[in-house]
Amino acid sequence: MRAVELLAKKRDGAALSRAEIEWFVEQYTAGALPDYQAAALLMAICIRGMTREETVDLTLAMAHSGEVLVLHEMLGGYAVDKHSSGGVGDKTTLVVLPLVASCGVPVAKMSGRGLGFSGGTLDKLESIAGYDVNLSTERFETLAKTNGIVLSGQTHDLAPADGQLYALRDVTATVPSLPLIASSIMSKKIAAGADGIVLDVKMGTGAFMNSLEDARQLAQTMVDIGTDAGRDMIAVISDMNQPLGQAVGNALEVAEAIETLHGGGPDDFRAHCLEIAGYMLRLAGQGARWTDAEAVRELLIRQLHNDAAFDKFRLLAEAQGGDVRLVDHPRRLPQAAHQEILYAAEAGFIGQVSALDIANAAFELGAGREKKGDPIDLAVGVRVHVKVGDLIAQGAPLVTLYANDETRLERSRALAAGAIAVQDSAVDPLPLFYDVLCGP
Amino acid sequence: MRAVELLAKKRDGAALSRAEIEWFVEQYTAGALPDYQAAALLMAICIRGMTREETVDLTLAMAHSGEVLVLHEMLGGYAVDKHSSGGVGDKTTLVVLPLVASCGVPVAKMSGRGLGFSGGTLDKLESIAGYDVNLSTERFETLAKTNGIVLSGQTHDLAPADGQLYALRDVTATVPSLPLIASSIMSKKIAAGADGIVLDVKMGTGAFMNSLEDARQLAQTMVDIGTDAGRDMIAVISDMNQPLGQAVGNALEVAEAIETLHGGGPDDFRAHCLEIAGYMLRLAGQGARWTDAEAVRELLIRQLHNDAAFDKFRLLAEAQGGDVRLVDHPRRLPQAAHQEILYAAEAGFIGQVSALDIANAAFELGAGREKKGDPIDLAVGVRVHVKVGDLIAQGAPLVTLYANDETRLERSRALAAGAIAVQDSAVDPLPLFYDVLCGP
Repeated sequence: MRAVELLAKKRDGAALSRAEIEWFVEQYTAGALPDYQAAALLMAICIRGMTREETVDLTLAMAHSGEVLVLHEMLGGYAVDKHSSGGVGDKTTLVVLPLVASCGVPVAKMSGRGLGFSGGTLDKLESIAGYDVNLSTERFETLAKTNGIVLSGQTHDLAPADGQLYALRDVTATVPSLPLIASSIMSKKIAAGADGIVLDVKMGTGAFMNSLEDARQLAQTMVDIGTDAGRDMIAVISDMNQPLGQAVGNALEVAEAIETLHGGGPDDFRAHCLEIAGYMLRLAGQGARWTDAEAVRELLIRQLHNDAAFDKFRLLAEAQGGDVRLVDHPRRLPQAAHQEILYAAEAGFIGQVSALDIANAAFELGAGREKKGDPIDLAVGVRVHVKVGDLIAQGAPLVTLYANDETRLERSRALAAGAIAVQDSAVDPLPLFYDVLCGP
Repeated sequence: MRAVELLAKKRDGAALSRAEIEWFVEQYTAGALPDYQAAALLMAICIRGMTREETVDLTLAMAHSGEVLVLHEMLGGYAVDKHSSGGVGDKTTLVVLPLVASCGVPVAKMSGRGLGFSGGTLDKLESIAGYDVNLSTERFETLAKTNGIVLSGQTHDLAPADGQLYALRDVTATVPSLPLIASSIMSKKIAAGADGIVLDVKMGTGAFMNSLEDARQLAQTMVDIGTDAGRDMIAVISDMNQPLGQAVGNALEVAEAIETLHGGGPDDFRAHCLEIAGYMLRLAGQGARWTDAEAVRELLIRQLHNDAAFDKFRLLAEAQGGDVRLVDHPRRLPQAAHQEILYAAEAGFIGQVSALDIANAAFELGAGREKKGDPIDLAVGVRVHVKVGDLIAQGAPLVTLYANDETRLERSRALAAGAIAVQDSAVDPLPLFYDVLCGP
């Protein structure tokens, strides 16, 4: 097979065969194909697109570039996983994993760190002093079996080809390609080995996908890939025009997750978690259990109110070396030195709470990292007290800024203030979800 | 300026600014931009195309990446150049340069070697033992001034960016892009410094451009570039469905060129040369001389018949160290050990003489090189005795193969025989030219 012929094929808009895609991934991963040929192919894919078959072939080739787990063997039963395309204030994993596990469905999940406005799930968990995100393969498996819950960094070398290709995409302007985004996410999910996967595709100003059409296409593409790879799939498209919940920032989000696990927390975030956890149970029930959505919802609410979900979270933290006193008393989580509340200058309806601007305000305070390895300030962030559609009085608190470095407050304040628009006429609240796609 | 932003712009189909294009060429030539980013940009250009402004900007940026000559200063008057996009049996330069020079228009041309089916102009000239194609800058200028004719390899470092980018295009399937092809050719032509340029764009099975539409687009793009760069331009689109003239192969072509310089040679080739030389004179006359095409044609024919053109060629060869006995007696040029004539199995009309198949037959005998630096057999090649439209008798000679290695004859014979189609019904001859484009 000649690289130039393969490039010419995609350049002219033709579909690559499975053999060609496998050859490309193998050669590139082995270092036998130079970066410049891979870069040219990625650009051609970016512009010409890929068919469903090509996208599935690419996903599976990347998934099989490293170890592919079979989670149901490790867990001794149907294994369910979830993935979020990433949003502002998205601490859903911290709630739904223990919630689902408390219903008797074991979960063994590998998460990542964050780039951009705030940390990823691993960063958030590190707010709990001692929590070990670097488990060995053996420890990961043992905890999954004994506790029915484990949440760690990548213990296995999952889809290494994706990592290599992603690094190249990042410097060649080939990130925003639907088949490349979908295959990147799904290669890791498929290698992670769950039988059923719930995808939470975010749509809005604070998400990668800014239009419903784009989000739906990405969701459908990932559902198609998972289906063709023999996985049960549900994808939801959820709102990311305004932040999810109130807290944006690592320790702040852990505290909000714990509140939610006790049955409290912001209404929108709790409702979001119940929906995602419900879909995870529906998959885990394999059409025999948890088919009645209303009954599932009642079960989940019960598991929050009776602290069964919280107990699973506490068990998770404890088993991975975390200081459970912080879980029991979230006020002991890292606290910022300075707090500043911004108040409404006038009464009115909240017309906008820009997720992107709030994210930037939190980033400005040190909640996120610009590049891999940068330090993160776990304590800082933003709490947003209003939602689109709310009617507020003059002087009502809009956001609270949590800062350690006062010199960074000014810019953050401007961003946070600019995020929120107040208007005279009434505004409809934003929906939590826009669509649900199932497969097969 | 950030490379990724520039890549994203072209990926999304937008036009790059002059500053962006100059930055790209400068950075890449300086080794500051990695191959993978250049490769991704070239692929995006290949698929998205470039506007006239972008193409001109790219051409000039590449032309100015090295030395840019001002030929009229070197020659002391209007300087004219010609370029052929390359064809089978195309030895036009060997005739038109001395022919034009014999009319008092000095020519100082840098040519290249060939890749593919047969040698380039430099390879052909090396059939004349001793001919030096590696002149120093000083010698090049001296000969241009004293003799009014010089024909050498690149004595100056012309458009080095083009060389670097071409090497990358070659391995990233980004060669067949109209703006990239046009800017590559024109960057060298503009750096070579002529005031007027005649372009001979070949169209047909033996050319890079297989359709009249593609050839016309390439010609128009190059005329536009030259015009915008302040050069006088004429482009002709000439046939390359069948070979030009009879001889295909280095020494065979030199012999045919010498025949033509004496006023003989194949009709089609002589007519082609008269046309190209006529356009070169028209440019050199700057609208004041050589405006009457018929008078120019008569002048040129006279220069062939009175051996003025041949004398210029002899002067050229002698000045550059060539053995003029070979010019005076072309039978002393390198001769192949074996000749084999293929005859017509039946009478009829010649329906096709595939330039591509004939080229491959010559290549098979060793007339060309696959990659840079490969040796070439100057003596071997093919002579084609028929033209499309000819009526031939059974047993008439179709082609003669000139071989040094008998083991290569079999495959060459098959290719040559397959090149020619004989049919019962009459066939129109192929035109020599399809179109002429002028600029400004």
